[in-house]
Amino acid sequence: MIDFSCDYNCGCAPEILAALTAANESQHATYGLDVISARAKEKIRAAVENPDADVYFLVGGTQTNATVLSAILRPWEGVVSAASGHIAVHESGAVEATGHKVLTVAADEYGRIEPETLRDYLRGFYADETFPHMVQPGAVYLSHPTEYGGLYSAAALREIRAICDEYALQLFVDGARLAYALASPETDVTLRLLGEVCDVFYIGGTKCGALLGEAVVFRGAQKHFFTAHKQRGALLAKGYLLGLQFDALFTDGLYFRLGKQGTDCALALREGLRAMGVVFCPESGSNQQFPVLTPGQLQKLQGKIGYEIWQRLPDGSAVIRLCASWRTTGADVDAVLDALRV
Amino acid sequence: MIDFSCDYNCGCAPEILAALTAANESQHATYGLDVISARAKEKIRAAVENPDADVYFLVGGTQTNATVLSAILRPWEGVVSAASGHIAVHESGAVEATGHKVLTVAADEYGRIEPETLRDYLRGFYADETFPHMVQPGAVYLSHPTEYGGLYSAAALREIRAICDEYALQLFVDGARLAYALASPETDVTLRLLGEVCDVFYIGGTKCGALLGEAVVFRGAQKHFFTAHKQRGALLAKGYLLGLQFDALFTDGLYFRLGKQGTDCALALREGLRAMGVVFCPESGSNQQFPVLTPGQLQKLQGKIGYEIWQRLPDGSAVIRLCASWRTTGADVDAVLDALRV
Amino acid sequence: MIDFSCDYNCGCAPEILAALTAANESQHATYGLDVISARAKEKIRAAVENPDADVYFLVGGTQTNATVLSAILRPWEGVVSAASGHIAVHESGAVEATGHKVLTVAADEYGRIEPETLRDYLRGFYADETFPHMVQPGAVYLSHPTEYGGLYSAAALREIRAICDEYALQLFVDGARLAYALASPETDVTLRLLGEVCDVFYIGGTKCGALLGEAVVFRGAQKHFFTAHKQRGALLAKGYLLGLQFDALFTDGLYFRLGKQGTDCALALREGLRAMGVVFCPESGSNQQFPVLTPGQLQKLQGKIGYEIWQRLPDGSAVIRLCASWRTTGADVDAVLDALRV
Amino acid sequence: MIDFSCDYNCGCAPEILAALTAANESQHATYGLDVISARAKEKIRAAVENPDADVYFLVGGTQTNATVLSAILRPWEGVVSAASGHIAVHESGAVEATGHKVLTVAADEYGRIEPETLRDYLRGFYADETFPHMVQPGAVYLSHPTEYGGLYSAAALREIRAICDEYALQLFVDGARLAYALASPETDVTLRLLGEVCDVFYIGGTKCGALLGEAVVFRGAQKHFFTAHKQRGALLAKGYLLGLQFDALFTDGLYFRLGKQGTDCALALREGLRAMGVVFCPESGSNQQFPVLTPGQLQKLQGKIGYEIWQRLPDGSAVIRLCASWRTTGADVDAVLDALRV
Repeated sequence: MIDFSCDYNCGCAPEILAALTAANESQHATYGLDVISARAKEKIRAAVENPDADVYFLVGGTQTNATVLSAILRPWEGVVSAASGHIAVHESGAVEATGHKVLTVAADEYGRIEPETLRDYLRGFYADETFPHMVQPGAVYLSHPTEYGGLYSAAALREIRAICDEYALQLFVDGARLAYALASPETDVTLRLLGEVCDVFYIGGTKCGALLGEAVVFRGAQKHFFTAHKQRGALLAKGYLLGLQFDALFTDGLYFRLGKQGTDCALALREGLRAMGVVFCPESGSNQQFPVLTPGQLQKLQGKIGYEIWQRLPDGSAVIRLCASWRTTGADVDAVLDALRV
Repeated sequence: MIDFSCDYNCGCAPEILAALTAANESQHATYGLDVISARAKEKIRAAVENPDADVYFLVGGTQTNATVLSAILRPWEGVVSAASGHIAVHESGAVEATGHKVLTVAADEYGRIEPETLRDYLRGFYADETFPHMVQPGAVYLSHPTEYGGLYSAAALREIRAICDEYALQLFVDGARLAYALASPETDVTLRLLGEVCDVFYIGGTKCGALLGEAVVFRGAQKHFFTAHKQRGALLAKGYLLGLQFDALFTDGLYFRLGKQGTDCALALREGLRAMGVVFCPESGSNQQFPVLTPGQLQKLQGKIGYEIWQRLPDGSAVIRLCASWRTTGADVDAVLDALRV
Repeated sequence: MIDFSCDYNCGCAPEILAALTAANESQHATYGLDVISARAKEKIRAAVENPDADVYFLVGGTQTNATVLSAILRPWEGVVSAASGHIAVHESGAVEATGHKVLTVAADEYGRIEPETLRDYLRGFYADETFPHMVQPGAVYLSHPTEYGGLYSAAALREIRAICDEYALQLFVDGARLAYALASPETDVTLRLLGEVCDVFYIGGTKCGALLGEAVVFRGAQKHFFTAHKQRGALLAKGYLLGLQFDALFTDGLYFRLGKQGTDCALALREGLRAMGVVFCPESGSNQQFPVLTPGQLQKLQGKIGYEIWQRLPDGSAVIRLCASWRTTGADVDAVLDALRV
Repeated sequence: MIDFSCDYNCGCAPEILAALTAANESQHATYGLDVISARAKEKIRAAVENPDADVYFLVGGTQTNATVLSAILRPWEGVVSAASGHIAVHESGAVEATGHKVLTVAADEYGRIEPETLRDYLRGFYADETFPHMVQPGAVYLSHPTEYGGLYSAAALREIRAICDEYALQLFVDGARLAYALASPETDVTLRLLGEVCDVFYIGGTKCGALLGEAVVFRGAQKHFFTAHKQRGALLAKGYLLGLQFDALFTDGLYFRLGKQGTDCALALREGLRAMGVVFCPESGSNQQFPVLTPGQLQKLQGKIGYEIWQRLPDGSAVIRLCASWRTTGADVDAVLDALRV
C-alpha cells in the first residue's frame, strides 16, 4: 500500500542519515554549543539573509509553538490565531498551559487569517471600552502553509506585518511544513521575506525530511532564549543531533529540493484529479491535497492508497487528505490516479 | 584527547544506529502508536516485571521531570528534592514553570536524601501549625544514581516508600543514568524494585547509549498522560524513533551491558586512582568519579584527558568529574592512570 | 440622576454595615477561622440543606472563578463555558493564567448553555479520533443568572448534571448575582438544588448587598482548598470581614429579601416597558433588563437615568442594560418609566 | 485578656470606619476608577514625592506579592528573597504558582538580606558557567520591616539598589507593616526613599489600620497592570472601598500616627522587658517584639496576655512574638510588664 496519509511517518532523507551515522562516533559539545550546530545556524542566517538572526534548534512543533510564544508574550497577553490554527485545536492546550489565551479569529477557507479579518478584530477589540478587562492581543500566530495547505502571499504577509506594527503585536509564523510552501509556484513568500516580516518563525524539519527538529529563527539576538527553552524541556542534551540535520538540509539546497519533491508531486496529483473532475476543499498549492471523493472513488483507493478521512459528508462522499512528502515519487502519484481510473 | 568530561556528548550504541537505519525507509504510525514502540513497551514491562506498568517515551530529562511532576501533583503540592537535585538546580525552573515549588532538603555527601532526613522534614512540616499556609509536600524526587554518582540501597528505597505511604506522597525516581546504577556492585536496587516502590520512574536513554530518549514507567495505567505529555511538548511526532531505541536497549540485555561497561570502567579507574592515594569527594560506585587532584596531577591530565572541574579548592587542588560511559574502554582508563603516573 | 448602570457601585445593606461596625473593636481569629465565619458557614449549610457542604469566603468573582477552577481541574483539562460566559470574555484570561483552556460552546440568546448543546459538544469531542491531542473537558461552568440575566430551570440543571455524570465532568455554577435568580418567579432553581447538582457553586455577595465577598460552597469536604485559595491570593487575612457579611445575609432571610427587592423592581420595570411596546434582547427574568430603545427614548433618559449601552444597532437604537439591585426602589422604577413617558 | 498575638485581628481605625459609613450610600465608579481612589492616589504620590508614581490598590499581601512579581518578571526569571521571606515560606507557593522560582539567600538574624550577601550570591551565580541552565535572578524581594521586625537602613537600601542596577534586577519591597517601620527611630528609611530606590513597593493597609488593602506604588506608569491584576483576581469590583481607606490613611498623617502608636508601644514594651533582663531574638525596632521568656515568665502571661510562641527552646523557655499595633495602648504595655513583675 502506498501511504499518503501523513507526511511525518517515516525517517529522514538519506543525506541526513549519512550525516548522523558519520557523526555518531565523535564527541560533540553539548546543548547545541557544538561546531556542527554553529555551522548550521550560519547557513540558516545566510538563507534568511539576516546576519543578526538568532537561531535555535528545538525538537517538535507543539514544543516550539508553546516555548516561543511563552517567551515573547507578557502574562496579560494572548496570541491571535485562526480558529483552525494548530495551537488552537490540536496541541492539548500547550499555550494555555503556559498561561496565555489563544484568541481565535475566523479563518478563510484555506485556514488563513485575512489581513482584513485581523484588522477588524483589533479595531473591534479596542473599540470595546471594556478591553482592559480582556486578554490583550500580544502576538499573531500564522502557519504557512496552513493546516489546510493554504499559502499566504508576500503581499498578505506584508500587510499583516503592517497591522502588527500598528497595534504593537509580534508576528510568529509556524513553518512546520515550510519546505513545501517555499517550493510552491503559488506563493511568492521566501525565507528572506519571513526573516524580514516575522519577529520569529520556524523552519520545520520533522515534516520536511529531517528525523526530528525545528529551526527557530528570531530576527534579532535573544539574550535569554537559551534559558527559556531549557525551562520548557526544549533544549536537547545532544543538540548536535538537531544541528547536523539542519546543516545537511541547508547544504546544496537539500531543504528546497525535498520541499519541491513533495509539492511537485502534490500538484501533479491535483492536476490528475482535476482532470477527472474532482473538486477540492480547499484547493491547496502545497503538499497536502484535500479532494472530495465519491463513495465509489473512496472504494477504489481502499487497500491500495493510504489516506486520511478529513470530513465525511452527508451524501457518503468525503473530503480526504492526501499528503505528498519529500519521499513521494511520480510513481506514487500515478498509483493514486491509476487506482481511481480503474 | 580522551574525553571523560561528559557521558552524553556522542551518539548511540551501534545496535541502535543499525535499528534506526533499518527503520528509516518504512512507514510508522505516529505519536508512539507504532508497533516498534508497542514492542519496546512490552519488553520494559517484562524487565520491570509488572504487566500493568504504563510506559511512555519522552525526549530528555528536564522535559521528563517537569512533565511527570506536573501530571502527578495537584496545584497546592510541591515536590521534595535534595537541595542538590537536578530539578532544584539545573533545570532553569522547569518544575516551577508548571506552578510547583521544589521543596529542598539537605542531601548527604552522595547527593542522596536519607530516609531520616525525609522523615524529619515531614514531621517538622506537619508539626508547624502554620503548615496549611505552606506548599504541601505531594511527591518525593530522587535521582539514582544521584548527580554525584550516589547510589541508594534497596533498603533505603523501601524505607522511603514506607515514609511516602505514611504521608501520602508519590515517589518519583529520575533514572537519567540508571544503566550505570543497575550495573554497580554497590547497590542491590533492581528495575523490578524500582517498579515496585515508585509510583513512576524513568529509565534514562540519552546518557546510557541511546541517541536521545527516556522511558517513563508508571506503576499503573494513566488515562490522561498521553494528553498531559502532548501538552508539555513532550510527545514526539515520530515516536517510533524513541520506541526503536528502547526496543534495541531491551533486546538481549543491551541496556545492562552498556551500563556495565561504563560502571566497570569507572570502578577500575577508581581502583587505580585509589592505588595512587587519590581520595574522592564523594566516592561514587557508578559511572561518574569525583577524585580530588593536586595541581600537579591536574597538570598531568592537561591536553590528554578531557575532564570537568567540579569544585576548585583553596589550595589549588580540585575535585574533578571523570565520566565513564558505555563507550569507555579499558584503554581509556589506562590512559588516565598512565597520564598521572608519568 | 438615578443610576441603573450597575449593581455593584455602592456599599452594602444597612444590616451588614451595622454588623461590621459592631465587630470593628473586637479581636477575631485570622484567616476565616473566627467564630463569626463558622456561624455563617453553618447558616449556609442549613440554607443549602447539606450538612457536609464545605464553605469558603472569597473576595470577588474573577478570583473565585479562577481559584475554584484551578483547584478542581487537572492540567490537561479545560472548562466548558458559554462563549459569552464571564470567564471566557471579561476576566483577562484569569483561568488561562492558571494553565487551563476555556472551551467555549454557543450560548442560547439568554447566555445559557442548553443541555443539548453541551451533549452535542461532548459527543462531537469524543467522536473525533484526534481528541487525545486536545484539551479534555473536565468541568462545566454556568452562570445563574447569566451575564444576560438568563435563568436556568431546575430541569435544565438536572439534565446538565446528568450529562456531567455521563462524561465525568464537574459542574460549577457562578452565582455572582444569585440572590436575584433565587427571587425570580421565572425559575424554580433553589439553593438546595444548586447544592445538590453542583460539585461547587458560589453565592454572590458583592453584587447582592454585601460590601464584597463570595461564598463558595463545595458539596463535600475539601482537604486542601484552604491552601489552594491561599496560593491564589484569595484567603483574606481578616476573614471575619467576609464571614460577618454572610452571617448577616443569612440571618432572617436578608439575602433573599435583598434579591427580591432587585428582581421585583426589575420585573416591574419590564412590565412598564412592555406596556410601552418596548422589546427586550434578551428578555430577562432577573435583575438586569435589556430593553431595545429608540434614539428618541435614549434621549429621554439622558441626564436622568444612568444606564449602560449594551449594543448599538445600525438604526441608531440600542440595547441598553438597566440593572436593578437590592437598593432600587419602586420610585426609581417609576422614574425610568416617567422619563420615557414624557 | 489583652491580645498581643497578632496585628491584623481586628477592624480598622475609626476614621476609616467613618469614611466607609459615609460613602456607603453613594454610587461610585467601579474597578477603582472612582474619584475617591483618584484622590487617594494623588495623596500617595504626594507622600512619595513622585508625581509619576503609578498607584494601585490591592486586597492583601500574598495577592500583592504574587501579582506584582508575576507582572515584572519574565518567565525565565526568579526573585531573590531571604530564606525567611514571606514569599518563600508562608504564601503557599503563590509565586511559584505563577511560574517563578523564589531564589533564597541567607538572611541575617533580623530577616534582612545584607547587601554583601546579595552581591556574593550574584557574583557566585554568574561565576558558575552553568548559569544559563538555572533560573535567572530578575528581581529582589525585601520586606521592611521584615518578618522578624528587622529594619533596613537608608544606606543598605541604597546599596541594594546599586547592586540591582549593576545586575539589571528590579527591586520590590513588601511593606505589609510599613507604617511601623516609618515610625521607628531606628531607621532612616522614608516613603520618599522607597519611591526612589524601588521599582515597586507597597504600603500595607491590612496590618496598619485599614480593614483590608495594600497600596502598590510603581516608580513609573504601567500600561498593563490594570489587566495584569484583574487577571490575578486582584482587581476589586468596588475599588472605592480600598481607595477610601487609603484616602483616610493619607489624610492628616493618619497612617504615620497609627504606625507611631504601634511602634512607640512596642519600644516601650522592649524597654520595660530589657529592664527586667529579658533578651530578644532578634531585637526589633518596630512593632513586633521577640523576647525570650523563661517557663516561669511564660506562666505569668498565661490567661492575661495573648501572645504567639515563635520558637520553643530546649530548656523550656521560648521566643514569643508580641505584636503591638495601631490599637495598642500604654495600658496594654503596662499590663504585660505588670504580669511579669508579679
